[in-house]
Amino acid sequence: MEPEFDDLLLLFQAVIQWIAIILSASTGVYDARRHGLDYFGALVIAAIVAVGGGTIRDLLLGRYPLFWLQDPIYLTSIFIVGIIGILLIPISTKSNQSDSSHSSGIIQPVIRLMFGTSGSFALIDSFALGMWAYLGTLYALTSGIPPVIAPIMGIITASFGGVLRDILFAQIPEVFRPSQFYALASFAGACAYVISWVLNLPYPSGFIACMALTVLVRMTSIKYNITSF
Amino acid sequence: MEPEFDDLLLLFQAVIQWIAIILSASTGVYDARRHGLDYFGALVIAAIVAVGGGTIRDLLLGRYPLFWLQDPIYLTSIFIVGIIGILLIPISTKSNQSDSSHSSGIIQPVIRLMFGTSGSFALIDSFALGMWAYLGTLYALTSGIPPVIAPIMGIITASFGGVLRDILFAQIPEVFRPSQFYALASFAGACAYVISWVLNLPYPSGFIACMALTVLVRMTSIKYNITSF
Amino acid sequence: MEPEFDDLLLLFQAVIQWIAIILSASTGVYDARRHGLDYFGALVIAAIVAVGGGTIRDLLLGRYPLFWLQDPIYLTSIFIVGIIGILLIPISTKSNQSDSSHSSGIIQPVIRLMFGTSGSFALIDSFALGMWAYLGTLYALTSGIPPVIAPIMGIITASFGGVLRDILFAQIPEVFRPSQFYALASFAGACAYVISWVLNLPYPSGFIACMALTVLVRMTSIKYNITSF
Repeated sequence: MEPEFDDLLLLFQAVIQWIAIILSASTGVYDARRHGLDYFGALVIAAIVAVGGGTIRDLLLGRYPLFWLQDPIYLTSIFIVGIIGILLIPISTKSNQSDSSHSSGIIQPVIRLMFGTSGSFALIDSFALGMWAYLGTLYALTSGIPPVIAPIMGIITASFGGVLRDILFAQIPEVFRPSQFYALASFAGACAYVISWVLNLPYPSGFIACMALTVLVRMTSIKYNITSF
Repeated sequence: MEPEFDDLLLLFQAVIQWIAIILSASTGVYDARRHGLDYFGALVIAAIVAVGGGTIRDLLLGRYPLFWLQDPIYLTSIFIVGIIGILLIPISTKSNQSDSSHSSGIIQPVIRLMFGTSGSFALIDSFALGMWAYLGTLYALTSGIPPVIAPIMGIITASFGGVLRDILFAQIPEVFRPSQFYALASFAGACAYVISWVLNLPYPSGFIACMALTVLVRMTSIKYNITSF
Repeated sequence: MEPEFDDLLLLFQAVIQWIAIILSASTGVYDARRHGLDYFGALVIAAIVAVGGGTIRDLLLGRYPLFWLQDPIYLTSIFIVGIIGILLIPISTKSNQSDSSHSSGIIQPVIRLMFGTSGSFALIDSFALGMWAYLGTLYALTSGIPPVIAPIMGIITASFGGVLRDILFAQIPEVFRPSQFYALASFAGACAYVISWVLNLPYPSGFIACMALTVLVRMTSIKYNITSF
């Protein structure tokens, strides 16, 4: 494998991760304002949706220092996104708890806000989902976690930011409720990566398999409205 | 102390711990389905009730790697219990939040499901409670925690899986509400173990004292309906 | 700097920290009883309000062992405050969830209980707030966290005990809702300390600047009822 390809892949990963953080943070601030939170609550929710899943993963693995405490780029980006969101989105005065229509995944609000209802955003989001699954599984394996357990870290990285958000909203987490496959998509991708790791396949194949399977499962469940049970 | 006895005790502990995890996971999946969660939510709740208390203990003590990340037997057992539970128990369609009758302890639902209302299950559960109290206190002492504080880790190990479950159900934790002694029973057992540790009594006496006192306090409070205040 | 002055400052800090823990614990036990919790719930809430923010900070920084697991003075003090509170305050039988009037900050109930409605208590509380902000920021900087990120740890130390309390009450955290500046006051103080650290100013100036700015922002927002948005 030539170093040029490796560098390109790392750059690509960094860009995707940064996009995923920006997207997650913007959905967080939107949800926070809709739930009547002030600027501080909105910033905290934005940060938690963006880096909360990765933080739980690193606490469970004992991976110190935490990535967002080492490099200010993550929190700075979240802060800028949060401030823009706070200035643009007024605090909702509607009854906060009564929105019974819980959307699937964490990005439904942003779809409406930024992209109308087009499916192109769902595709981008499922790429981010695959990326989180990839990063979480990779970090678990390099930390010496048994391969059978490693996909759990992929799922936690992808889902538990949203779980923490819903805990702070005093709601049962959306990702635990029947809806289109979200956790399962990240699990499928994580398993694909673990298999490529165990078989010792050349580097980018595991990453590509993880992304492809996550996107495939997620988009298929959305297109045909296949829901969890 | 002969090695044969030691090995038997370790085997006995491992069996009790495994039983406790299986029981906790089955109560978790039952509660999750009753609260309208899908398969993913049910698996997460099952895992959290089974290993959540021990995880909080280990995070506070800095004991890495976490026990359930080292040996796949724990998560595999929980997974099998969870899948069986998901296939057997349909998602409840009743209003989820309105069940105001919170039962005492975490095992009431399984009592009805598996054992009718017989007291034999409550006895088994109080053995598990004592086992968690013993393990938590032992780990705290071997981590160099002052003996005065060590029982806290026994209580956390025994109770905080249920606390995390109730947080995810967006409810005030059951174990914090007036009911028969649950935390107090594990505290009594933990204190008994600490005393045996400080007095440097021969090994199995502390374990036996912890189990006996936990079971005694728990069963007495159930039999005579003595509740916390 | 003479050693005498240093010793006096450390003593002063220890006293303030101990006062802050006592105050936080007493508000915790009061809130817990008002929400219908039994003795165990009240003790847990008292401990979480008092040391929960610092615990989250230390878990994120990987600072082991945790301060309250090393020295029993903290938990012993909380335990005594908790027991007194439990004996004095009966469990509220009113509907727990329906108190929609969320007070600003964590100390409103104790104000009424102990001090009437006088502003002198608010002043003491804002000193505690500044102290937490100072300690959190200092620990972050000495752990090698970039100065840009360090104030986050000050805010977390000051605010997240109350966030954990509200999670256990199954409520959206008060500090995330529009009210007088609380998190912002601790942020201002934390930033003042970081600036003094970066400029390498002589030791007590950063501490004094942090305290002064926190108290100023907090008391100004209370006096003129300036609320977050």
